[in-house]
Amino acid sequence: MLVYGRNVAKEVLQNPKKVKKIFLMKDFKEKDIISLIEKNKIKVEYLDKKEFSKFDKFSHQGIILDIADFIYTDYENFLSVDNAKIVILDHLEDPHNLGAIIRTCEAAGILGIIIPKDRSVDINSTVMKTSAGALENVKIAKVTNLVSVINDLKENGYWIVGTSLDGNLDYRDIDYTGKIALVIGNEGNGMSKAVENSCDYLTKIPMYGKINSLNASVAAGIMIYEMISLDK
Amino acid sequence: MLVYGRNVAKEVLQNPKKVKKIFLMKDFKEKDIISLIEKNKIKVEYLDKKEFSKFDKFSHQGIILDIADFIYTDYENFLSVDNAKIVILDHLEDPHNLGAIIRTCEAAGILGIIIPKDRSVDINSTVMKTSAGALENVKIAKVTNLVSVINDLKENGYWIVGTSLDGNLDYRDIDYTGKIALVIGNEGNGMSKAVENSCDYLTKIPMYGKINSLNASVAAGIMIYEMISLDK
Repeated sequence: MLVYGRNVAKEVLQNPKKVKKIFLMKDFKEKDIISLIEKNKIKVEYLDKKEFSKFDKFSHQGIILDIADFIYTDYENFLSVDNAKIVILDHLEDPHNLGAIIRTCEAAGILGIIIPKDRSVDINSTVMKTSAGALENVKIAKVTNLVSVINDLKENGYWIVGTSLDGNLDYRDIDYTGKIALVIGNEGNGMSKAVENSCDYLTKIPMYGKINSLNASVAAGIMIYEMISLDK
Repeated sequence: MLVYGRNVAKEVLQNPKKVKKIFLMKDFKEKDIISLIEKNKIKVEYLDKKEFSKFDKFSHQGIILDIADFIYTDYENFLSVDNAKIVILDHLEDPHNLGAIIRTCEAAGILGIIIPKDRSVDINSTVMKTSAGALENVKIAKVTNLVSVINDLKENGYWIVGTSLDGNLDYRDIDYTGKIALVIGNEGNGMSKAVENSCDYLTKIPMYGKINSLNASVAAGIMIYEMISLDK
């Protein structure tokens, strides 16, 4: 996986074993980064401005790192943890939202995140950048079939709390004790029908304006902090 | 103010009096939008691909609208409203954060937002896009000196709740009854010292991970919904 820019570089270089190779612009001068590269003896290739230009849309700031791909967890690891709180993302699309939600999950001490394999945003450079380092400390499982995983979670004592604009329960009125999986839907379309049907509760954040739409990562943040509120 | 793209166009054209002029790419074909333009007899100028290219970084999708500038409110309008909840943004930088916070304030029924005139993100095209229409329904006051406005708010019965990583109170332990102004700090540096010193309470969102950073708009969302929770 390629990641871009100086802030990401400084962060990734805290864990230098992950870095396979670094591409630097010929006049790259930032001393902190260069000394980290030299100290860790990481392979460097210098490229000129023209060769870098094809990466311009990534705001690379003269540095591109080729790092090991993100290592996913098996969701089975979440099944038997007492009082676990996990988050399921039902086909989220925007990498900025995924990154911000990963940050929130890390800060809130969420056990893990489940995302579907298909038609979903994946862990990429933008997600890594937006997650501001949190990605390294969050367990993410990628699964083929969300509904069958939800059924497995239920058989193992999880309650499934879905979020929907049409939810009949205020998010503050749910009992979040025990094992809870919170499902966040797609930015435009919400949860899929099949996932919605497999939820134990459908909850919503009450809104009092005219437009009444929350950014997906903001809505997730409000719900996640309510979910963990009792335990902490 | 210039704003860009088809979704923004559809939204702005709900309120056609705001639109001064529209620039269209010569082969622009979206029927819904064209019929709205014709119905409202809005002045159109057609430009070719080359003329449009200097706006390419705004993802214009072939349509640029020149609209009336955002009309700010006087913060004095907030002073004597019973039980008012307002949000003060202390030098926020990222327009996506401002847009997302405007959305949250609209949905939460917040009375108004106060931003400083200098060194702060302003209402621009990105803010408008990210706010997803909420901007039209939120009152925003732009002020020269945050500290003197905060003092005025206090003299008029407001309690000032600042948010800080070093806050000594859990955000759930504050009494939010009555008139409350919630202060959200800059993304990197938090609140300025002078603003922090004028707060009645310093509160924080507890975090349980290793990285422990929340996106500014997510943190604001969690705090704002807690602030209004008692009243609704």
